[in-house]
Amino acid sequence: MEIIRKEQGVLTMSPNNKPVKKVQAGSTVVFETYDCFSNQIQREDQLFSSVGWEQINPATGPLFVEGAEPGDILKVEILEIKIDQKGVMTTTPKLGVLRDYVSGETTKIIPIQEGKAIFNDKIHIPIKPMIGVIGTAPGREEIPTGTPGQHGGNMDCKQIIKGSTLYLPVNVPGALLSMGDLHAVMADGEIVICGLEIPGEVTVKVGVLKEESYPLPMLVSEEKLIAIASAETLDDAAKLATINMHQFLVQQLGIDVDEAGMLLSLVGDLRICQIVDPLMTARMEFPQWILDKYEYKIK
Amino acid sequence: MEIIRKEQGVLTMSPNNKPVKKVQAGSTVVFETYDCFSNQIQREDQLFSSVGWEQINPATGPLFVEGAEPGDILKVEILEIKIDQKGVMTTTPKLGVLRDYVSGETTKIIPIQEGKAIFNDKIHIPIKPMIGVIGTAPGREEIPTGTPGQHGGNMDCKQIIKGSTLYLPVNVPGALLSMGDLHAVMADGEIVICGLEIPGEVTVKVGVLKEESYPLPMLVSEEKLIAIASAETLDDAAKLATINMHQFLVQQLGIDVDEAGMLLSLVGDLRICQIVDPLMTARMEFPQWILDKYEYKIK
Ligand SMILES: [Ca+2]
Ligand SMILES: [Ca+2]
Ligand SMILES: [Ca+2]
Ligand SMILES: [Ca+2]
Ligand SMILES: [Ca+2]
Repeated sequence: MEIIRKEQGVLTMSPNNKPVKKVQAGSTVVFETYDCFSNQIQREDQLFSSVGWEQINPATGPLFVEGAEPGDILKVEILEIKIDQKGVMTTTPKLGVLRDYVSGETTKIIPIQEGKAIFNDKIHIPIKPMIGVIGTAPGREEIPTGTPGQHGGNMDCKQIIKGSTLYLPVNVPGALLSMGDLHAVMADGEIVICGLEIPGEVTVKVGVLKEESYPLPMLVSEEKLIAIASAETLDDAAKLATINMHQFLVQQLGIDVDEAGMLLSLVGDLRICQIVDPLMTARMEFPQWILDKYEYKIK
Repeated sequence: MEIIRKEQGVLTMSPNNKPVKKVQAGSTVVFETYDCFSNQIQREDQLFSSVGWEQINPATGPLFVEGAEPGDILKVEILEIKIDQKGVMTTTPKLGVLRDYVSGETTKIIPIQEGKAIFNDKIHIPIKPMIGVIGTAPGREEIPTGTPGQHGGNMDCKQIIKGSTLYLPVNVPGALLSMGDLHAVMADGEIVICGLEIPGEVTVKVGVLKEESYPLPMLVSEEKLIAIASAETLDDAAKLATINMHQFLVQQLGIDVDEAGMLLSLVGDLRICQIVDPLMTARMEFPQWILDKYEYKIK
């Protein structure tokens, strides 16, 4: 099995990044990841501001997938997410939804024991490890790993978990996949700009789809098909995710435009991924059981 | 049991509305409700534009609750929601998220059979009846029943179901509760501006809380405590719901401001109610099990 070490990372998703590994489509690859602070916060007296900007949100990679050409779709099956035995959270004034309500910079180290995050004596939270940052290279720009977009990136979507499959655009030869910023657990919104930040390792199987037209980024889990979208405002991100899913229902399932709209209004849950990153991220969730009724299978 | 007939309704929530019934706190009351089109759409050749604006979003009421004084909280326990045997959906161009993507005005009549909405031959959707419009009179303004706000109103929150309890502000003597706009089922977002619109009747028990300070509107279900907020943008609604819940955790549970923020980031799901009404509505969901750990009970 191929492994990419955490020291092999990037701070942008960019067509100019040099691949650190090349694999065939169909390969299984392990990405070892730093936490979003490059593991620089190990004690509660170490604050967010002690971490350099060049150490925030590193992504391991990029991986070059042979045969992936611009216009293709990269299929990333998340086979496993292993996390460390302790994670960290921080608050910072003037950032996040509670910018005017937190007391100042604070750090909290949170141990993971028997599948739970030990937040304090009273509160032990069941973990649900997820990937905060995962994306391919955009076609021309260099996008910081802290920013989400059509290429993926810092989407902070709590449904990107073990067993799910993420579809991303291929904009450059090899796709240049990178990832990082694992969270042991996070809620929709990510309101203080962090989940339970934690180092770990992610095992994925990468594949390439030719001539397929899905709304991207798209996530598939056992129960849901999810269109993810990011924009300057949450309003715009939510609209974009909805429009993308609507287009999918019309083009792929052949549902009439009006029926597809009504159907989304009844069963398509429009949800928030995060509202604290440089762009906001929303998702439209559509139930798999309806795809089954149409005998439609995602590739 | 007291019953308010659907013919006894309002189109605004207003301190100037005359109560149609007076009850003691602790009473159980049935509100019979029109659908959001005043039951004017019965066939698929009847379009949204055939319904007069004065027939859109009627709310049955208002109910005067004895002893409810400005500054109190009205507690509304939703004991039962019964719905009719068929509902209706419409699409309208130039309205809603899909304004540029629907073909024009269309109407769909959808029967309810054995707990499912028969959307078409393939798709039978389990129903989950909810209340779209429910609120008290604001202190001074007249707010159309189609608009959500701090007084409640057209929140279109799909968690307002049988078994939940809604807390609303009392701004005028008697509170002046009214409700309508039931949906047999609806998804978060309500992207074509309707759920499965349906007439029905709602049974509630009304109570009055004195000198209590909750984020309002607040909804309590078996598993969640939910702060609901509306604003011009979804971004602002989401922030307001978060700040209100944060304040609750700090003031009522005595959690430190920074810990409360981190906790919300881990377990507080920030969700969308609707993005199609005159104001947007979001909600912050906090797990009941954590309140239990603090031995905190909502009154
Ligand atoms: Ca992140
Ligand atoms: Ca983030
Ligand atoms: Ca993070
Ligand atoms: Ca409504
Ligand atoms: Ca409605």
